[in-house]
Amino acid sequence: MAHYDLLVIGTGPAGQKAAIQAAKLGKKVCIIERKEVVGGTCINTGTIPSKSLREAVLYLSGFQQRSIYGGAYRLKQTITIEDLAFRANHVIKTEIQTVQDQMARNRIELCYGTASFLDPHRLRIRSEHDTRELTGDFIIIAVGTEPARPADIPFDDQTVIDTDGLLTLKHIPDSIVIVGGGVIGTEYASILAAMGVAVTLIDKRPRLLQFVDTEIIAVLQQQMRDIGVTLYLDEEVLAIKKEADKTIYVCLKYAPPIHTSLLMYAIGRVGATQGLDMDVAGLKPDGRGRLNVNEHFQTPVPHIYAVGDVIGFPALASTSMQQGRHASCHAFGQPDRTDNSLLPYGIYAIPEISLVGQNEEELTQADISYGIGIARYKEIARGQLIGDQTGMLKLLFHRQTKKLLGVHAIGEGATELIHIGQAVMAYCGTIDYFIDTVFNYPTLAECYKVAALDGINRLPRPWPP
Amino acid sequence: MAHYDLLVIGTGPAGQKAAIQAAKLGKKVCIIERKEVVGGTCINTGTIPSKSLREAVLYLSGFQQRSIYGGAYRLKQTITIEDLAFRANHVIKTEIQTVQDQMARNRIELCYGTASFLDPHRLRIRSEHDTRELTGDFIIIAVGTEPARPADIPFDDQTVIDTDGLLTLKHIPDSIVIVGGGVIGTEYASILAAMGVAVTLIDKRPRLLQFVDTEIIAVLQQQMRDIGVTLYLDEEVLAIKKEADKTIYVCLKYAPPIHTSLLMYAIGRVGATQGLDMDVAGLKPDGRGRLNVNEHFQTPVPHIYAVGDVIGFPALASTSMQQGRHASCHAFGQPDRTDNSLLPYGIYAIPEISLVGQNEEELTQADISYGIGIARYKEIARGQLIGDQTGMLKLLFHRQTKKLLGVHAIGEGATELIHIGQAVMAYCGTIDYFIDTVFNYPTLAECYKVAALDGINRLPRPWPP
Repeated sequence: MAHYDLLVIGTGPAGQKAAIQAAKLGKKVCIIERKEVVGGTCINTGTIPSKSLREAVLYLSGFQQRSIYGGAYRLKQTITIEDLAFRANHVIKTEIQTVQDQMARNRIELCYGTASFLDPHRLRIRSEHDTRELTGDFIIIAVGTEPARPADIPFDDQTVIDTDGLLTLKHIPDSIVIVGGGVIGTEYASILAAMGVAVTLIDKRPRLLQFVDTEIIAVLQQQMRDIGVTLYLDEEVLAIKKEADKTIYVCLKYAPPIHTSLLMYAIGRVGATQGLDMDVAGLKPDGRGRLNVNEHFQTPVPHIYAVGDVIGFPALASTSMQQGRHASCHAFGQPDRTDNSLLPYGIYAIPEISLVGQNEEELTQADISYGIGIARYKEIARGQLIGDQTGMLKLLFHRQTKKLLGVHAIGEGATELIHIGQAVMAYCGTIDYFIDTVFNYPTLAECYKVAALDGINRLPRPWPP
Repeated sequence: MAHYDLLVIGTGPAGQKAAIQAAKLGKKVCIIERKEVVGGTCINTGTIPSKSLREAVLYLSGFQQRSIYGGAYRLKQTITIEDLAFRANHVIKTEIQTVQDQMARNRIELCYGTASFLDPHRLRIRSEHDTRELTGDFIIIAVGTEPARPADIPFDDQTVIDTDGLLTLKHIPDSIVIVGGGVIGTEYASILAAMGVAVTLIDKRPRLLQFVDTEIIAVLQQQMRDIGVTLYLDEEVLAIKKEADKTIYVCLKYAPPIHTSLLMYAIGRVGATQGLDMDVAGLKPDGRGRLNVNEHFQTPVPHIYAVGDVIGFPALASTSMQQGRHASCHAFGQPDRTDNSLLPYGIYAIPEISLVGQNEEELTQADISYGIGIARYKEIARGQLIGDQTGMLKLLFHRQTKKLLGVHAIGEGATELIHIGQAVMAYCGTIDYFIDTVFNYPTLAECYKVAALDGINRLPRPWPP
């Protein structure tokens, strides 16, 4: 029976980085994957396929060019599923290869099979071919999540699908009803609408993505409506039934019922912890299969860590990687210097959204007197060049010290742009930095300067001047 | 005769920002423009049209998609000049409007006509309609440059053109010879090649863009060759003659002569100072029509400043704006806090190049012990998604302190990306910042983390470990 310093269960972003970090510290590591390929949801069914779909749609639909070439502009009048799959498969193949190479380069053993606990330090790995037992000083659980499939939803993977089901459809639908306006539901709704699919998005909350700045969401919702998404907010789905003719019938609390030929249920994901026999290790996942951890990602059993989507919010590849690294560092007595208040969020809807630091609600609750500075993409040359009419960057800063407290962006390149503000925040910088800095012309980065100037201009002038 | 606190000659980026800065300080400002429209070379013939052309070419040629959809992929098999002009005109119109609005909003008077000095404080402005005289406490010269047209080059604006001539051509040529591999020559060479034009680029230096990192230029030159640019480096043009049949004959020092139907002469620009009667003000431009200034952009006549392209390198819109602001601040006794060691450079070739801070040559000369960390776009998920196979980010840092000293990038979004490193440098940060920071996934910004890790890995390990 092989013994390791560290066993990692799951090869998604969290598991990969946990394994690599430990290997870099000179530890003997084995990483376990139950699917045929490495990469987890991120590479195979989630992040990469959906971002790849997004890139293909943006390009093939001519979406970003419409403000320049006219609203009716389309590059390919009929986008086929092959067009979309071609690009996704290209990227997925390369990413799988990259992960495998990284594992090999760091001498991490890769073991395919389904893991279950035999005792708190021992795992059994079952594959088609054999069954092995491995022991580890430390174990990191990075098994991720899978779509929740409540019993009262008539899933059939053809007319009623979960969020993994979209990319395996044979045809691009004419219309779709999406239940659930979280990150995944919102991303797919906007991507499908940009393709020309008639999308209906239903959510019980009064607006999409509660954790995002109100003004940014107003832009997003307006943009989504402009490209043909029908938003039912503050609405509840009472029942989803399949009729004899295969039509899906969606009964709502307030609005008249909807009939559709395709429905995506996008509410909730559950930890993929079933079958791990965690009780043997002394662990008990919650009702949604998730594990509770402390600030070092330790479960109640201190040598067993849990990282990534299986521990819940924010369930982003970027933060999961950091959690993986942190857990390994902690296990092997290394410091980890990441500042968790500066974790960025990226939402790859159309348009793209990103944020870092605090939002207005948080600042109000904390009783911090803040100023606001806004730049719209259409005010700057680069925004004109790329034809982004709705993008905006919003800075929140301390009214007295001018210290930068939060950056909120929507529009092309928002997920890249946010990192300039993130760096300034990391060094406790003020918005004067943006005023004093020369930015390349023409770039979207110039939004920082325009927003900072706007922020200063909105402050009350000293009187007498 | 009207009197102003400040007279600004020229409405390009330098003049605009000088005028706005003074207006914001409560000064009475008049800005003078000799063309029919505001904006200068930047908006009307240079930066904006060429960047607009670049965007249109990247999109319409399907250039960025070729690594994904195959090398022969073209979006529009035949790009017409109308396709290109449509986009440029759209952006130019909007930018002119923006500048006019900004002037009006800041109560800056705009005066059309050709300025000449009557005495060191007085200008005569001649237009078709009238002649006026204006006086100013301060005068800022921001007249820009125009292409040099040496007498021995047979310019005819049809077969032998200068760098302003490309965008007024009636047809897209099959081939072109470009003499001069500076920023403008390099940008147009790569843009035209991406369109499918057979480009020959001739420069007397051994490589393009001497001020850019050697490795970055190696990538650029390889990329340009890959898309069909024939590079003649270390080569001299001895003569350019027009034959009777309108063919252009280019006699070279080393290689056999070239015959072409279109030649762009892209060597040098001269200050647009003719006709200003600067001797009356006590000023004397150099042989290339340029003005010498001190660190506050004052000419030898202290109340007269010169900013923008008319003072020479780097002649970028971004730095020109800063110079304009600085001159106004200095004139009216305000501090200016810009750190000139952190001016970024952006070159909008295909691929895009950007840099900030020091390069290897400078560090070697200064005897600074530096480390190098490199990330290639193809190593990161976002690079795969956008299909950029050649992009790279290179970090230079102090070997002992790990302080970030320079950032050099080539590839899609390089001009945006550089600003993350610029912020870290402004706060004297180390490359540990990138290792400790969470970046959105998938973004190009992740290159910083990969490059920083690469940099650390290349350092000699302490021994014994």
